[in-house]
Amino acid sequence: MMKKGLLIVVSAPAGCGKDTILECAFNVCPHLHYSVSATTRTIREGEQEGVHYFFKSIEEFKKMIKTGELLEYTQYAGNYYGTPKAYIPSMLESGKDVVMKIEVDGASNIKKLFPSCVLVFILPPSFEELERRLQKRGTEDAKTIKTRVDIARIEMSFVKNYDYVIINEKLEEAVKDFAAIVKSEKLSVKRGFPTVK
Amino acid sequence: MMKKGLLIVVSAPAGCGKDTILECAFNVCPHLHYSVSATTRTIREGEQEGVHYFFKSIEEFKKMIKTGELLEYTQYAGNYYGTPKAYIPSMLESGKDVVMKIEVDGASNIKKLFPSCVLVFILPPSFEELERRLQKRGTEDAKTIKTRVDIARIEMSFVKNYDYVIINEKLEEAVKDFAAIVKSEKLSVKRGFPTVK
Repeated sequence: MMKKGLLIVVSAPAGCGKDTILECAFNVCPHLHYSVSATTRTIREGEQEGVHYFFKSIEEFKKMIKTGELLEYTQYAGNYYGTPKAYIPSMLESGKDVVMKIEVDGASNIKKLFPSCVLVFILPPSFEELERRLQKRGTEDAKTIKTRVDIARIEMSFVKNYDYVIINEKLEEAVKDFAAIVKSEKLSVKRGFPTVK
Repeated sequence: MMKKGLLIVVSAPAGCGKDTILECAFNVCPHLHYSVSATTRTIREGEQEGVHYFFKSIEEFKKMIKTGELLEYTQYAGNYYGTPKAYIPSMLESGKDVVMKIEVDGASNIKKLFPSCVLVFILPPSFEELERRLQKRGTEDAKTIKTRVDIARIEMSFVKNYDYVIINEKLEEAVKDFAAIVKSEKLSVKRGFPTVK
């Protein structure tokens, strides 16, 4: 019997290193696949359409909402983010492990739709450090950074709805933490176990 | 707030490599501590009193049962195995992670006493391979090996009571599996999470 794939939902306040952790984790866990989200936020250097996100105009995104093409969507710091309905159930059925990056309120919706999914929250070691990282990234102005740090403080209260929490103090350790969560969930008896002959 | 230690209960049919896996896992997870069991089985080469087991005569063991000095005990392939009551709760309270090796029926008792413990079952890739490994070990005669393989087949039915199952096909992978389980359980939100300031 083929085991169903694992759905891993990852959330993090902006600047916590979610994308970098996942990028590194995908190198050590080549069995992982991204669920590609749709977003109205501006494309960043190095990002590719259909790989990192499906970049949409606000009009296009609103049309997707209206026609029921999204599993969930949320608005965050002025941009829309959403998960296209299309491929997650079929990926899981075919035994593939899917990683979905979504905002904190979207995560609870996914848990309702896929109760066996694993919710992972990534946090910075401190809010001071988060602010430093956002400044270093240099993609947002001072006002936006302040807003993002304020939002991060609010998002903290969502941790209790998650299964695991990773503190991204050192990237290498955070990547190991993420890989360990994926590995151990796949060894979990509640997900089925092999018959020894 | 200091997090309570993790209690990891490990069971495996004889010859599945439980001791070797744990020995290697302790090298990569130096924060682990053994819960030392009492047993009436014969001491093997390289084993030390108080480190691997407390080796007891049948009379001594029966006295420990009578005076209530054991958390649980079981009889297996003609020998007694038991867990002294003394130090587990105090180890966990002081934040130490404790590994307890016990037989399958003992594991359920420990789960009742420590509901937050993690139950790990180690299995061989096949019963044929298990027999080969027992023969290679050379510590049991042919009849005992047959008994042990028969017992292993029965023990398989206990897997469903466990949290995780590791198939020891390659030692290195099994050690990584074990370390991942420990790491991820320590990141689990249900065990408490740090407050970011």
